[in-house]
Amino acid sequence: MKVAILGATGYTGSELVRLLHQHPGVELAFISSRGDAGSPYYRVHPQFYQAVGLALQPPALELIPDAVELIFCALPHGRSVEVVPALLDAGKQVIDLSADFRLRDPGLYEDWYGWTHAAPELLERAVYGLPEINREALSGAVLVANPGCFPTGALLALAPLAAAGVVDWASVVIDAKTGVSGAGRTARPAFHFPECAESVKAYRIGDHQHTPEIEQILGELSGGTVTLNFTPHLVPMIRGILSTVYLRLQGGGTPEQVARLFGEFYEGAPFVRLLPAEQLPETRYVRGSNCCDLGWRFDRRSGRLVIVSAIDNLVKGAAGQAVQNMNLMLGYSEESGLTQVPLF
Amino acid sequence: MKVAILGATGYTGSELVRLLHQHPGVELAFISSRGDAGSPYYRVHPQFYQAVGLALQPPALELIPDAVELIFCALPHGRSVEVVPALLDAGKQVIDLSADFRLRDPGLYEDWYGWTHAAPELLERAVYGLPEINREALSGAVLVANPGCFPTGALLALAPLAAAGVVDWASVVIDAKTGVSGAGRTARPAFHFPECAESVKAYRIGDHQHTPEIEQILGELSGGTVTLNFTPHLVPMIRGILSTVYLRLQGGGTPEQVARLFGEFYEGAPFVRLLPAEQLPETRYVRGSNCCDLGWRFDRRSGRLVIVSAIDNLVKGAAGQAVQNMNLMLGYSEESGLTQVPLF
Amino acid sequence: MKVAILGATGYTGSELVRLLHQHPGVELAFISSRGDAGSPYYRVHPQFYQAVGLALQPPALELIPDAVELIFCALPHGRSVEVVPALLDAGKQVIDLSADFRLRDPGLYEDWYGWTHAAPELLERAVYGLPEINREALSGAVLVANPGCFPTGALLALAPLAAAGVVDWASVVIDAKTGVSGAGRTARPAFHFPECAESVKAYRIGDHQHTPEIEQILGELSGGTVTLNFTPHLVPMIRGILSTVYLRLQGGGTPEQVARLFGEFYEGAPFVRLLPAEQLPETRYVRGSNCCDLGWRFDRRSGRLVIVSAIDNLVKGAAGQAVQNMNLMLGYSEESGLTQVPLF
Amino acid sequence: MKVAILGATGYTGSELVRLLHQHPGVELAFISSRGDAGSPYYRVHPQFYQAVGLALQPPALELIPDAVELIFCALPHGRSVEVVPALLDAGKQVIDLSADFRLRDPGLYEDWYGWTHAAPELLERAVYGLPEINREALSGAVLVANPGCFPTGALLALAPLAAAGVVDWASVVIDAKTGVSGAGRTARPAFHFPECAESVKAYRIGDHQHTPEIEQILGELSGGTVTLNFTPHLVPMIRGILSTVYLRLQGGGTPEQVARLFGEFYEGAPFVRLLPAEQLPETRYVRGSNCCDLGWRFDRRSGRLVIVSAIDNLVKGAAGQAVQNMNLMLGYSEESGLTQVPLF
Repeated sequence: MKVAILGATGYTGSELVRLLHQHPGVELAFISSRGDAGSPYYRVHPQFYQAVGLALQPPALELIPDAVELIFCALPHGRSVEVVPALLDAGKQVIDLSADFRLRDPGLYEDWYGWTHAAPELLERAVYGLPEINREALSGAVLVANPGCFPTGALLALAPLAAAGVVDWASVVIDAKTGVSGAGRTARPAFHFPECAESVKAYRIGDHQHTPEIEQILGELSGGTVTLNFTPHLVPMIRGILSTVYLRLQGGGTPEQVARLFGEFYEGAPFVRLLPAEQLPETRYVRGSNCCDLGWRFDRRSGRLVIVSAIDNLVKGAAGQAVQNMNLMLGYSEESGLTQVPLF
Repeated sequence: MKVAILGATGYTGSELVRLLHQHPGVELAFISSRGDAGSPYYRVHPQFYQAVGLALQPPALELIPDAVELIFCALPHGRSVEVVPALLDAGKQVIDLSADFRLRDPGLYEDWYGWTHAAPELLERAVYGLPEINREALSGAVLVANPGCFPTGALLALAPLAAAGVVDWASVVIDAKTGVSGAGRTARPAFHFPECAESVKAYRIGDHQHTPEIEQILGELSGGTVTLNFTPHLVPMIRGILSTVYLRLQGGGTPEQVARLFGEFYEGAPFVRLLPAEQLPETRYVRGSNCCDLGWRFDRRSGRLVIVSAIDNLVKGAAGQAVQNMNLMLGYSEESGLTQVPLF
Repeated sequence: MKVAILGATGYTGSELVRLLHQHPGVELAFISSRGDAGSPYYRVHPQFYQAVGLALQPPALELIPDAVELIFCALPHGRSVEVVPALLDAGKQVIDLSADFRLRDPGLYEDWYGWTHAAPELLERAVYGLPEINREALSGAVLVANPGCFPTGALLALAPLAAAGVVDWASVVIDAKTGVSGAGRTARPAFHFPECAESVKAYRIGDHQHTPEIEQILGELSGGTVTLNFTPHLVPMIRGILSTVYLRLQGGGTPEQVARLFGEFYEGAPFVRLLPAEQLPETRYVRGSNCCDLGWRFDRRSGRLVIVSAIDNLVKGAAGQAVQNMNLMLGYSEESGLTQVPLF
Repeated sequence: MKVAILGATGYTGSELVRLLHQHPGVELAFISSRGDAGSPYYRVHPQFYQAVGLALQPPALELIPDAVELIFCALPHGRSVEVVPALLDAGKQVIDLSADFRLRDPGLYEDWYGWTHAAPELLERAVYGLPEINREALSGAVLVANPGCFPTGALLALAPLAAAGVVDWASVVIDAKTGVSGAGRTARPAFHFPECAESVKAYRIGDHQHTPEIEQILGELSGGTVTLNFTPHLVPMIRGILSTVYLRLQGGGTPEQVARLFGEFYEGAPFVRLLPAEQLPETRYVRGSNCCDLGWRFDRRSGRLVIVSAIDNLVKGAAGQAVQNMNLMLGYSEESGLTQVPLF
């Protein structure tokens, strides 16, 4: 089975190359880049020297070998939508890692991204690629919208309770802490080493574009409309997202109820680890892996449940999840190519 | 005016030495250490080589020169209470940087610290050393309880709204992110470089000992009982605390109301900086200084106010605040010795 | 094929667990720890939760299952020598990751480590486990002394030139920069996060215990006595060693000669990557992998050759090299279990 | 006394603002920026909010107030030479922080910087602003060339031995490790946080432009021609340069001789700290200060002397040294405005 990556030089793209390179069932046959076409891949990402022999191609669809059956689109937001329709017309399966097919309501793209969606008819066809809630729909899917990094961490923390209908939505606060690779590979002043080492900040309070994505999925799971506050923070580390979710349960809830709901919901989910009671997630324990670690505490004094999730933003938050989706789409074992233990 | 430091080798102690060394009105005449007595100070803290010539003395009160009028206690929690009564009896003014005199209710020491307070009669006499709310009481005070690092950041974010009585207390969530120096100078596995670099975690969810301190002061300001959730996180940097505070205002509130309340409350406070509307606090912008930067956003969708504060945990969160308190106790300018611009 | 690890809780031990867990030809059947015996392994190293089900055993040799044929000793220096003779007597193959069998001359243990070697007769039998120079001797070896992390980086930079007899040994300076994990997992003041983040230092100038190990092997390769200066530096990162080696070639040398000698020497060495001329090694490009990247520049003005090598100190500098040695000892492919691409 | 800064928004410029703001004898009356003219300074550097009220002006010389007597040029290399002649013609004293007036031989600008010097006649007039070797010439100087960051660390390590004529120059190797702020404030891919955190690399081996500057001054001190190897390395920290200098002394030398030469040479130098024998420099101990810490070890086995120096590249390596030069030029105490203890 041959696959391709459009936009292979960003962090998401290079992480896809890393994971697909060691996947036993697929062959990476084509990688493209607008800016680095013609260059051996290792020139851009020297870690792959002598491991990956491919050269980068221009992003011209006619150059993709016919034998390629599935394509990962790791293009910037707003660029995927220009390309994906043609790929689908050509009979390819597509996993899109941008935001372009994640939202069902085209109006949300105008509100949160500032542009009009050019292929709104595809929004209904796209399957939201969070396997833990959409495993069945992903089998054989043609177009998969790979979730955002923040939504992955937030949704896995909330999905079991949302699906059970026990969340007091007005109480929900999501405070996320991300490593700097989440900002992408383009050098910008805010991510210049001396500007973000040894510092923490909040940003885009109340208007981060991942908010409607989180709300949409939680609304679908709970069967209602969800409006919540999501606040991202930048932390001086390369990889990882820790999401701290504060909420009250309807009727107050009990620790036993929470443990039961999480246990049942993630039964058989190979990458979600419900930590033993004495532990809490730390991003270092999932680094380089597709795991999402989950832990929680009841704060009896304030009546709140505090849930913490940890992911590697480039793996479970992007490329690893895309490979997990590919496995489900193509009928491979869900864990295929993703069995690496986290790298301490 | 001569002053002394008991417990001068920890991070709080060394920061006191740094600030007092450049204070124009006082002379540091005595420093003590249980473990390093007899050693020149620069042996323990080489940054002071050729700047500070003092040697560490044993922590025996009879060794303190008579001319010393004010003493900083930077001893571990639970050890100050053994020493402070004798210092007061000897006629010294005391600024205690431990938690031992911060709580008014002796029972809270049993609940949160696990020991019975040996001098409960002093709890009423101690002035809580947050100058922005207690400036008058600090003038001439004899025993000052210097606030905890987390309470300083959280209280400065909430005090104006608490004092105005406009907070819906059931809605308040405080999510704090601290650098590793907050854990002190003792090497422990959790703070071993390879264990905390490149990672973020939450800890002590719902049971951190700074919670009752925050609640006590907010209760006093608002004239009621406050119970809230405070969750600290460890971030891979040396200095800094960023506190993100989520709340709803009674009646909803308006941005103008918030701006007015903050402006009035911090009128004349030299170290609180209300940032221009387009900026949000980042810990790097207060590093090494006694500043507390404050910013906020109304999240109209969720009806929440999100307030962010940034401090250097060792300065405004400990030693700098202690010097600020000393200035007020002794009648110096509040800014004396604390005018350094943050070190980028 | 069953294998065991004595001393599985340190960084070298946990890295062995990670690599052996994904090795297709061996089963990790026994892990021991003096301090954590009885605990599930994931309690000590939570990254292995749900991946590694083993519990830690006491370090009693009689507890090792008979079916175990090869044992990794990852015990502290000086403790291996107490254990290895009995393991050999029991017919096990041993890869020792301490320094206890690396030096041929027992007197060097007294000079550099400060203790008298208890089993000097084994020093002759031990094969120095740097596969790039000892590949044949490792096949079927019974006792392998796994090289130190610094010697690995330094020797791979110098071996081709030493073997060719072209080095002016009086000119050689080795300046190495290591991440903090090289200091081990025990929390100590010098490796407390606030003490080593944001700083660089040199240490043990002229008396680091890896010096005689480097000199011994270079002496064997060059057929003479080698005395050189090796200076390690501590750098604020978790993993990685960059070694910068300065030397003059006898007769001056040429770039072409150097390229030819390196190319020939590392012909067929799967983990040594001779970088393209326009690149130089960076530790991030080998992170998590068994690669050693090599690059060099002729400084014509000073007549020096400057060689740079980069390794992951825990992989090629310790556990990965041990697995590579195991592969050779047992007749597996040299790359078996070690094909992970570096993790950016 | 009024002073001005041309190019105030880079790291060197903002460090000048920080130091001049707290200097008791001068008033910063004018700051310019090509890109940010018109903006309040705190918009670009928020740490100065409410401390520095100046706004940035366009870099037009006619805008500089007449009362300004001394001007710091913190412009990029190659731009200072276009401006300085006019400043001198206008009767201003100038401290230039670029490389444009550091080299005496105009030909070196063509060789190492790639451009022809437009004002070669000024190269003779410029005083090299390393006060420890040029204190007298700096008194009343009109044009001072402030040294580069690497040359400062390297020269202070070597100057006493060079001046004594005891160095075997063919043996000298300088291996320097710098924090990322040395690369300036412009965001570029190599200094993007995820690209340089958790990694070390060497760069510009044998062709770094600071090499001729080091060689020129050492040649002047020793009365001969010096050619040596200087190799910089990038380390994941914000501030600091550690220079490790390897050399042999003519005739071998003794520790006592070295101690005596250093002691005599730096007699009365307020910012050079010769560390006690049991300590070695670490960059954290000079952070934020104008100190240069020096330590050394004789490696008797290899016959080498290894000298280590530590500076803060933005202070003693740039802005602090410029203020020190200003103090000497204007007749202030050499330490004026520079007495801050290092910030741990």
